[in-house]
Amino acid sequence: MTRGIARDLYQRVAEAPIISPHGHVPIDWLANDTPFADPAALFVTHDHYVTRLLHASGVSFDDLGLGQGASDPREVWRLLASNWHLFAGTSSGYWLEEELDDLGVAAELCADTADETYDAIAMKLALPEWRPRSLFERFGIDVLATTDDPLDDLAQHVAVADALAGRVLATFRPDRYLDPDAPAFAENVERLLGEAAFPSTFVGYLAALADRRRHFIRHGAVSADHGVEEPLTIDLESARAEQLFQSVLRGRASSEEKRLFRGHMLFQMARMSVEDGLVMTVHAGVLRNHSTSTLRTYGPDTGHDIPVPVDFTRGLRPLLEAFGLAPGFHLVLFGIDESVYSRELAPLAGFYPSVYIGAPWWFLDAPDSIGRFRSATTETAGFSRGSGFIDDTRAFLSIPARHDMARRADSAFLARLVVEGRIRAQQAERIADDLVGPLPRRVFKL
Amino acid sequence: MTRGIARDLYQRVAEAPIISPHGHVPIDWLANDTPFADPAALFVTHDHYVTRLLHASGVSFDDLGLGQGASDPREVWRLLASNWHLFAGTSSGYWLEEELDDLGVAAELCADTADETYDAIAMKLALPEWRPRSLFERFGIDVLATTDDPLDDLAQHVAVADALAGRVLATFRPDRYLDPDAPAFAENVERLLGEAAFPSTFVGYLAALADRRRHFIRHGAVSADHGVEEPLTIDLESARAEQLFQSVLRGRASSEEKRLFRGHMLFQMARMSVEDGLVMTVHAGVLRNHSTSTLRTYGPDTGHDIPVPVDFTRGLRPLLEAFGLAPGFHLVLFGIDESVYSRELAPLAGFYPSVYIGAPWWFLDAPDSIGRFRSATTETAGFSRGSGFIDDTRAFLSIPARHDMARRADSAFLARLVVEGRIRAQQAERIADDLVGPLPRRVFKL
Amino acid sequence: MTRGIARDLYQRVAEAPIISPHGHVPIDWLANDTPFADPAALFVTHDHYVTRLLHASGVSFDDLGLGQGASDPREVWRLLASNWHLFAGTSSGYWLEEELDDLGVAAELCADTADETYDAIAMKLALPEWRPRSLFERFGIDVLATTDDPLDDLAQHVAVADALAGRVLATFRPDRYLDPDAPAFAENVERLLGEAAFPSTFVGYLAALADRRRHFIRHGAVSADHGVEEPLTIDLESARAEQLFQSVLRGRASSEEKRLFRGHMLFQMARMSVEDGLVMTVHAGVLRNHSTSTLRTYGPDTGHDIPVPVDFTRGLRPLLEAFGLAPGFHLVLFGIDESVYSRELAPLAGFYPSVYIGAPWWFLDAPDSIGRFRSATTETAGFSRGSGFIDDTRAFLSIPARHDMARRADSAFLARLVVEGRIRAQQAERIADDLVGPLPRRVFKL
Repeated sequence: MTRGIARDLYQRVAEAPIISPHGHVPIDWLANDTPFADPAALFVTHDHYVTRLLHASGVSFDDLGLGQGASDPREVWRLLASNWHLFAGTSSGYWLEEELDDLGVAAELCADTADETYDAIAMKLALPEWRPRSLFERFGIDVLATTDDPLDDLAQHVAVADALAGRVLATFRPDRYLDPDAPAFAENVERLLGEAAFPSTFVGYLAALADRRRHFIRHGAVSADHGVEEPLTIDLESARAEQLFQSVLRGRASSEEKRLFRGHMLFQMARMSVEDGLVMTVHAGVLRNHSTSTLRTYGPDTGHDIPVPVDFTRGLRPLLEAFGLAPGFHLVLFGIDESVYSRELAPLAGFYPSVYIGAPWWFLDAPDSIGRFRSATTETAGFSRGSGFIDDTRAFLSIPARHDMARRADSAFLARLVVEGRIRAQQAERIADDLVGPLPRRVFKL
Repeated sequence: MTRGIARDLYQRVAEAPIISPHGHVPIDWLANDTPFADPAALFVTHDHYVTRLLHASGVSFDDLGLGQGASDPREVWRLLASNWHLFAGTSSGYWLEEELDDLGVAAELCADTADETYDAIAMKLALPEWRPRSLFERFGIDVLATTDDPLDDLAQHVAVADALAGRVLATFRPDRYLDPDAPAFAENVERLLGEAAFPSTFVGYLAALADRRRHFIRHGAVSADHGVEEPLTIDLESARAEQLFQSVLRGRASSEEKRLFRGHMLFQMARMSVEDGLVMTVHAGVLRNHSTSTLRTYGPDTGHDIPVPVDFTRGLRPLLEAFGLAPGFHLVLFGIDESVYSRELAPLAGFYPSVYIGAPWWFLDAPDSIGRFRSATTETAGFSRGSGFIDDTRAFLSIPARHDMARRADSAFLARLVVEGRIRAQQAERIADDLVGPLPRRVFKL
Repeated sequence: MTRGIARDLYQRVAEAPIISPHGHVPIDWLANDTPFADPAALFVTHDHYVTRLLHASGVSFDDLGLGQGASDPREVWRLLASNWHLFAGTSSGYWLEEELDDLGVAAELCADTADETYDAIAMKLALPEWRPRSLFERFGIDVLATTDDPLDDLAQHVAVADALAGRVLATFRPDRYLDPDAPAFAENVERLLGEAAFPSTFVGYLAALADRRRHFIRHGAVSADHGVEEPLTIDLESARAEQLFQSVLRGRASSEEKRLFRGHMLFQMARMSVEDGLVMTVHAGVLRNHSTSTLRTYGPDTGHDIPVPVDFTRGLRPLLEAFGLAPGFHLVLFGIDESVYSRELAPLAGFYPSVYIGAPWWFLDAPDSIGRFRSATTETAGFSRGSGFIDDTRAFLSIPARHDMARRADSAFLARLVVEGRIRAQQAERIADDLVGPLPRRVFKL
């Protein structure tokens, strides 16, 4: 009975256009409409969800094409195929099977089918209908947000705007200009200031950031995204902020001073969002690059970003005291620490008009995890205080599979509430409809 | 099959008398048998579960009648009705629908039905059978605990005792006399000491508290309740305690000293409970009044008390080292941090004869949350180490709906265990019976 | 439908040999093949899962035979029988019912059946087929690991090796030689150094530990186990380590220095595991002996070890930076803080080839808990990064019941994934087969 209702709910929304207000698809794929290189590059080498689990199972990153040396894509694919059993039950496994199905690949991945599947995919990728722009249309993407450097001129976004029916939005992501521990922080800030000859003061620095935000807004951006290990916010007096700015710029700041600076800058970003209207999204609680030797050899985003506990209630209090009730301010909070769902996120979003609960993120973007998220947040905050689904992905081909999985998971959750007599079927239908379109449009001001 | 067994279990207990050993119904409602004012005052304005979610969705507290100015109750009701979709899937939504059903209101709340439902409810509330005492009898309330100030003379409780078949118990709640950060702390302590001319020393202060506890006990109280942000307990030497007492009274204590004082007073409250037999309940882990500007404008209890992580294992250790094995001592622990269920609460209650696991509280008083609570605690501590359901509510009309929901949720959990072959049907029946009556009577010494 | 698939999966693995790579069965039971004393000693007095819940319910440890004085086993059994209802829904209840069933005891435990069940069990225990070695064979145990003191000569393991078809492996457990707060730490270290006249320096101490590990390896051990309250690891310079070693040995170290020493020794144990190949298992996050008065009167392991939150991500980082990618290194992480499943354990094990997610441990070794564990880890790390089931028990007779319960729980989880279309039936079968044999053999190098 539950499954029947779930199926009906899912079918209402299965074909709804895709709204993807936060993700990591490189804009040049769409700007240049470049064909995807080969099955390995597309599905393995650049997908750290996939490479990390192969790595955990003893496959070297060099053999997967992440190293300096050349690697044969067919060999990389064979490594995936022969280790495919590792992905049973994982979200990566689910997505990839959906994508292969979409590519017309029916064979189960294993050592024996590696070559035939490789060839079948490679053949498809050479066809015009498998180039990014065609896929964008076929996937029914209505809105797709990229994630961009504040100094990006966004010319590619302009070029793309005319070429596609759906919207492609830039997202302002200033982490490397805000975190004194980021590589080349001082150089980046100097470039930022140099852009329009802003003075090398904290006031100049804030003005330069505000200026770049305006640039993004002029080019259609609706949100600014912030990745932080700790969701700490601090309101510092301007003299102290100026002093800290000079210290971090000169590399003289202590760890604690750098922490204060980061906390103050998150606070300042909220202030700017209140002023210029960009939706503020915070992805918190991940310790990046846990394995230093892996970072050195293979770079960042290679599968060893590991979550830590977060404290939104106390960490965000200064921000929310100052801006939590500001009209029009939208703050979407993402975390991987599930203990905050019922303890912090639902209560915060159930009071502050500005706060929205971010959809299950990263490791939690999966059917059971989505079920736990709904169970832990709905009884306190209902459905309207969530962000709607966000795929957060660089893996372009996985976008439909990800949205599809979320739609199925939400339909299953709603169906259970109907069967348990907690909502009526008609309510479930309205909510299902809302979640895939109107809700994310409201939250992201689309 | 599970649903059938759950239904049978539920029907055994559906009509059992209500034991409500912890709640916030104002005693004067029962003492004066005042008719409820109007639908808005009854269901909206004073229910921070309801107002907070409307607030989060952009409805102002002024428009809901929380501000200084007058508000038209019908307009307030219209705001609820037109935003009723926000409550789908929430516990507040469930309770309110049950209450409306009880009031004979069949129409679904929405903008179109706002006026007719308002009128229908208002008409009912004017009838004698909808006054508090009649409802008390009709609800089948056997025991109802209020929460009271230590200096309350409890005269209203005496008056009520003769007027009702069930018992109405006062509860000793001394937070404002124990927490140096509470508003008017020093004045309150002076009033407490002045009551019977106790000396302004730590010893006098303890004697005054013990004296008021005796007053409560003489008037039938069975428990003392403590709301703390951090469940910290500390056993200080008497000289240090005296010194701290003088500091906090004079407003000279540092944050850390105030913290120590609070921790020592929670310890002292346990000592007194061991001596005088009052059941000690601790509600821990909520940061009160997160939004200072909301507190200033609308007062406390306006929906922005936000949970934080708790550490019962280490925080309560001094208390449990001293009193955990004391005969007759009962300590009921409530938290909103679900991560403590299996990690701390079930193991503590599975060893210390004094410790009971408080029923899911506040944001967690809801069907899925109750299911998670049972799942996380039962395998370690069984059913006998829980407190039994506690409604913790000020919303008098919601009492039956809340107990009903808990009974349904527990029946569903037990039914699943039966179907999975983990308990026999007869055991499930005995447990279901125990949970709604004998268990809370044992835990709360009723 | 789910239940049918679960049953089929379970039946595939129900009779598979038992691999128990971590547990606490005393080797002398098998070395001497001593008959079990009586039903009370076997099922009650020495099982702290059982005694703790009776204790929580007001039964004294003296009456259960834990005190100094003599106790009549029949009286102890009567206490269990008359309180048997407390165990409904607990894992202890499940295991004991399975064991009684295996003993042919059909009557439900209660005051009325206490004597007849006692007699029935006692009669069985006197039979040769209920002695440890016969049971070992009948249970189908293929591998059983004990937990042993580093100075144990392991002669009993040698004796047992020839007497049983299955393997009995010693496990190196050095906690009391590594933790300056352990009772008699300095004396233990002196004995360790004295064993082969190692110098009383940090270098000598490390050499002595490495020497005892070699002794264990020569006698067939495959793993070293570490129980810590906090999973902290620190890489100290050798001069600092030497200095700390001298301080802790002389009892002059501060709490913080002892903490550093423990953290450095956990780091050193990983280094040795990398060198000598012993699988490193870490059981973290339990505050031992919460009730000091109980410890003094009844000793350790009496039911008041209470979990605390753990931080694997930051605590283990130094260890993983140094050894996480070392070939052949296996590190199995156990915790009772469920919040780390999706937040830390699955992401760590999904990247580091050395890290395996330990099966749900202690309070979490139960059907619902296993379900939550699978739900929280599988979507990120699949099935291959878990340790396989570990019974961790001293209760010899409960071994089959524990493995059986885990097999049922895993079958139920897999069946749900099949029904939800997330894995195919054939994959579920392969995974079910892998979990009970090949997987733990790979993880524990058997």
